[in-house]
Amino acid sequence: MVKVLKGKAVAEKLNKQTQQVVEDLKSIQCLPALAIVRIGEDSSSIAYESAAIKAMHQVGIEVSSLTFAADSVYEDILSVIDRLNEDKNIHGILVMQPLPEGISRNDIAERINPEKDIDGLTPTNLGKLVENNLSGLWPSTPRAVMELLDYYDIELKGADVCVIGSSPVVGKPLSMLLLNAEATVSNCHVHTKDLKMYTRQADIVISATGAIHLVTPDHIKDGAIVIDVGYGEMDGKIYGDVQYDKVEPKAAAITPVPGGVGTITTAVLAEQVVQAAWTLVTEQKNQ
Amino acid sequence: MVKVLKGKAVAEKLNKQTQQVVEDLKSIQCLPALAIVRIGEDSSSIAYESAAIKAMHQVGIEVSSLTFAADSVYEDILSVIDRLNEDKNIHGILVMQPLPEGISRNDIAERINPEKDIDGLTPTNLGKLVENNLSGLWPSTPRAVMELLDYYDIELKGADVCVIGSSPVVGKPLSMLLLNAEATVSNCHVHTKDLKMYTRQADIVISATGAIHLVTPDHIKDGAIVIDVGYGEMDGKIYGDVQYDKVEPKAAAITPVPGGVGTITTAVLAEQVVQAAWTLVTEQKNQ
Repeated sequence: MVKVLKGKAVAEKLNKQTQQVVEDLKSIQCLPALAIVRIGEDSSSIAYESAAIKAMHQVGIEVSSLTFAADSVYEDILSVIDRLNEDKNIHGILVMQPLPEGISRNDIAERINPEKDIDGLTPTNLGKLVENNLSGLWPSTPRAVMELLDYYDIELKGADVCVIGSSPVVGKPLSMLLLNAEATVSNCHVHTKDLKMYTRQADIVISATGAIHLVTPDHIKDGAIVIDVGYGEMDGKIYGDVQYDKVEPKAAAITPVPGGVGTITTAVLAEQVVQAAWTLVTEQKNQ
Repeated sequence: MVKVLKGKAVAEKLNKQTQQVVEDLKSIQCLPALAIVRIGEDSSSIAYESAAIKAMHQVGIEVSSLTFAADSVYEDILSVIDRLNEDKNIHGILVMQPLPEGISRNDIAERINPEKDIDGLTPTNLGKLVENNLSGLWPSTPRAVMELLDYYDIELKGADVCVIGSSPVVGKPLSMLLLNAEATVSNCHVHTKDLKMYTRQADIVISATGAIHLVTPDHIKDGAIVIDVGYGEMDGKIYGDVQYDKVEPKAAAITPVPGGVGTITTAVLAEQVVQAAWTLVTEQKNQ
């Protein structure tokens, strides 16, 4: 097995597949297009938006950006989402996060047409994930983890997996995807009494908390696979949840930060834009 | 703590609350009503339907039953669901399970108006459960477990809970509800390599597999709480997943089968009918 599980190769493979689907869509006169909605001027949100636009263009997806001031009238934002839902030339809608204070994630999520919800934010898509109903679109980060595990042939069926973090954006949907892949899943979080008990018995430890250096060598068994979904900044440097230098010698394989899971998320978003476009075009033809 | 966690007292408490809401609804000229849709003549389905009707009448909820032959035209069933979705005098729709072969659970689930989906079958409600969005309606059996744990003051925050079974109807949504209650949750199933490793470290073991006598004394630690969601028949007798006689002496508390979780599900369904009615009536008033 490759020791350092880099995200770049995974993203490249996904992008190659996506480019092929873009060609197929263009051959039936469909130009796949994403609308990005950003509310407010959060700097990480802006940076991620730029990266997403670049990634989309790279595979041939059109992007239109709609930006709102943080103090915009709520109804204006929702009515723009309604318009994007109706627009036949838009196949994916991506609402940048974090949202400004006072804007409810759930209200926004419930407004997006689930068929255009390429970041798996809507309750409908989260529910399809619980059902293992493959017509759904998944949240990008959990799906990026699954793509990485698949790319590096990491067996999940029957594997003991510990997921640290239980947010509705990463931890919980990731646990569902792993269960769908027939892994045994323990979901730990800030209220877990004895985190090490769970992580030490796991074949695969996946940490998604944003707590820098949470996972030490003492947390993992020899030969474990360690997937780091954390992303934090300290003294101008980027860190994951895992003490990489100390954990790496003990692990059979490990993802770096940066350069690991985070590298794959925009490729997942692009793939889900073309997946959505394909579904929408097929539906229009059948009508 | 009570040693034998009977469901009856939990159901009675829930029913009392529901009856009060029925009175409140009647005082604003709303008569809460449930439509039960049954397809085919599965005997357990018929028995459960009778029990549900009785439970609804007991708390003052009207019931209309719609029955289809197992070989009915699919579109006919879906169009009846559409009609019930539109009917302002119907507040809950309950589709009996199991469905006959060839009828897709997902197709039916996606057709029901989530606001009338009193058994939490729709992707939208399952997704709200992942989000811990309390405007959703939950699947009745997982919620029955939560009501039982709440009634008997069983602390969940930080508790080590092992759920056996990962179906989209019980195991997975139950794991989500337990995570929402801040428990640490391990979800095991038929592909789990070492079930005992997980069950023996758990403060609470919840089994929902239908495999009679799966859980032995050897599976649990002294003083564990054991919740049995199994229901199977052998030689004309009803059994749960747990070897009750042998596990009971070792457990701090345990649910009987029958007389445990199963006793609470119809009370949960009734509560969710009045919850749905309340939401629908409020929306109509605001329009």
